[in-house]
Amino acid sequence: MNLPKTVRIREVGPRDGFQMEREFIPTATKIEIINALVRTGLCLFEATSFVSPRAIPQMRDAAQVLAGIDRHEGMEVGALVPNIRGAENAAAAGVDEIVLLVSASESHNRSNINQSIEGSLRGFETMAEIASEAGITVRGSISVVFGCPFEGNVPVENVDRIVERMAALGITAVTLGDTTGMATPPIVRRVCRSVMDKYPGLEIGLHFHNTRGLGLVNVYEALGMGFDIFESSIGGLGGCPFAPGATGNVCTEDLVYMMEELGLETGIDLVELIRVAKKVEETVGRELPGQVMKSGRRLDLYPPLLNPLI
Amino acid sequence: MNLPKTVRIREVGPRDGFQMEREFIPTATKIEIINALVRTGLCLFEATSFVSPRAIPQMRDAAQVLAGIDRHEGMEVGALVPNIRGAENAAAAGVDEIVLLVSASESHNRSNINQSIEGSLRGFETMAEIASEAGITVRGSISVVFGCPFEGNVPVENVDRIVERMAALGITAVTLGDTTGMATPPIVRRVCRSVMDKYPGLEIGLHFHNTRGLGLVNVYEALGMGFDIFESSIGGLGGCPFAPGATGNVCTEDLVYMMEELGLETGIDLVELIRVAKKVEETVGRELPGQVMKSGRRLDLYPPLLNPLI
Repeated sequence: MNLPKTVRIREVGPRDGFQMEREFIPTATKIEIINALVRTGLCLFEATSFVSPRAIPQMRDAAQVLAGIDRHEGMEVGALVPNIRGAENAAAAGVDEIVLLVSASESHNRSNINQSIEGSLRGFETMAEIASEAGITVRGSISVVFGCPFEGNVPVENVDRIVERMAALGITAVTLGDTTGMATPPIVRRVCRSVMDKYPGLEIGLHFHNTRGLGLVNVYEALGMGFDIFESSIGGLGGCPFAPGATGNVCTEDLVYMMEELGLETGIDLVELIRVAKKVEETVGRELPGQVMKSGRRLDLYPPLLNPLI
Repeated sequence: MNLPKTVRIREVGPRDGFQMEREFIPTATKIEIINALVRTGLCLFEATSFVSPRAIPQMRDAAQVLAGIDRHEGMEVGALVPNIRGAENAAAAGVDEIVLLVSASESHNRSNINQSIEGSLRGFETMAEIASEAGITVRGSISVVFGCPFEGNVPVENVDRIVERMAALGITAVTLGDTTGMATPPIVRRVCRSVMDKYPGLEIGLHFHNTRGLGLVNVYEALGMGFDIFESSIGGLGGCPFAPGATGNVCTEDLVYMMEELGLETGIDLVELIRVAKKVEETVGRELPGQVMKSGRRLDLYPPLLNPLI
């Protein structure tokens, strides 16, 4: 297998995870968690989103969160923006990167952003200009790339068409999102191969969900193809809006554990990361789906128990 | 990748799963669940264990369970037996197969079976004779093959030595068990390659746990090496005695879902399997770790929700 030597992990828990929490997480707690994640060595963040506070009250403190977190050389702090107003607010709040979101299926884009794919793409032109004027980068994030919960299979042509339009706007970094965990190794192979072959200079991040248990299997498949940027969420924070109890994002510390066991460099301190995951679990007040935070690393040994079967 | 075309799944939930349940599951319920699993197309079972009722009261109805379940041509119903007495009881109860259990580390064998590895292996001679006289097959099941929770890494020589002794007793089917979820793809590659190369005629089943999130990743790695027998537990029933909240066995319906998505034949009806998993969840009265039972298969679609971000 042609594994990369180094892998970059983009932490999306403070956005994709927190936004699913009904109880408002105090701004100071959000800042504390992000700063603790920064101390583990994580450098790439989707720290918040600049959305309507009526639609997602949890994200109403986006500007304060950005003002409060530690920043250092090499970090890239991004925020999701669904529209022009969000892009302006994000730029004013001093993000390094705005993340432009569009779905690869019409029905999902309408459900999520309340407009057509074409409408979203047209808005991106102004948003990319706002970013350019503010001297910040733009990431294109495409949802339901590996399957849509409303339409089923998504033609790879849909993804291509969106990537092409993003590339034409000068966007050099794109995330392919498996928003509801519909990716499988054969689909990952087909779709990712298609995009990487057509856009050889494009930086492609992969965002898998574990909704059907295949999150890390898909990461493993993509690693074998040479992909080296993955998005994940601390503790596996997040979920699936349609399937109560199903997990959402791939869990950051389980992902880092797998990378370490595969001999890949992440620059992240797994022991610290497990500590932060436990703190996040305490904050949200319920059990998170992360496994390594419960079991420890493989060589974190236990004292023998005498529990004879006979 | 050199994937097999057909995969056999050995359901161990009624043994490895039920034994972790504190509340006694009524014998009739156990029988009902196993019979429902038989109707999904599952053929290979570890249906119970013949252990001391004082050590594991949950398994005290082993003979009644065996007497109550539906049997048909092609099914192989096994029971775990830790000692000579267990082998005699299992043979008398009409199992197709007895499963002889030994750990690949001394401390785990002592903790689990209360004797040395050598002591266990010597006992196997008599137990294999009992099976032979009763005309039933013997499976050798080796625990902590990919790592021991007390000792850490387990030398592959330990595994070899045990397999050699089993082969000398005429045992032709062996399960390599990842009892506490310490396997990783590189370890699977090294250990499984070593055993398959040394014993080319041996039927090798693999038993992974998802304790550190890598259960299906390890299955995927082993599939790529040509392995085609995997043990799993309905709903992901089971757990890790040392890590509260961590999952145990790989989940049967998630495993079957992955096989189907990889285009591999299992002979199992996934929709029925999901129904049984939900029934098992109801029976044990708490949320099970299985994902597909919550989310449905990837093309089980949802009606669009309007949930705009703007």
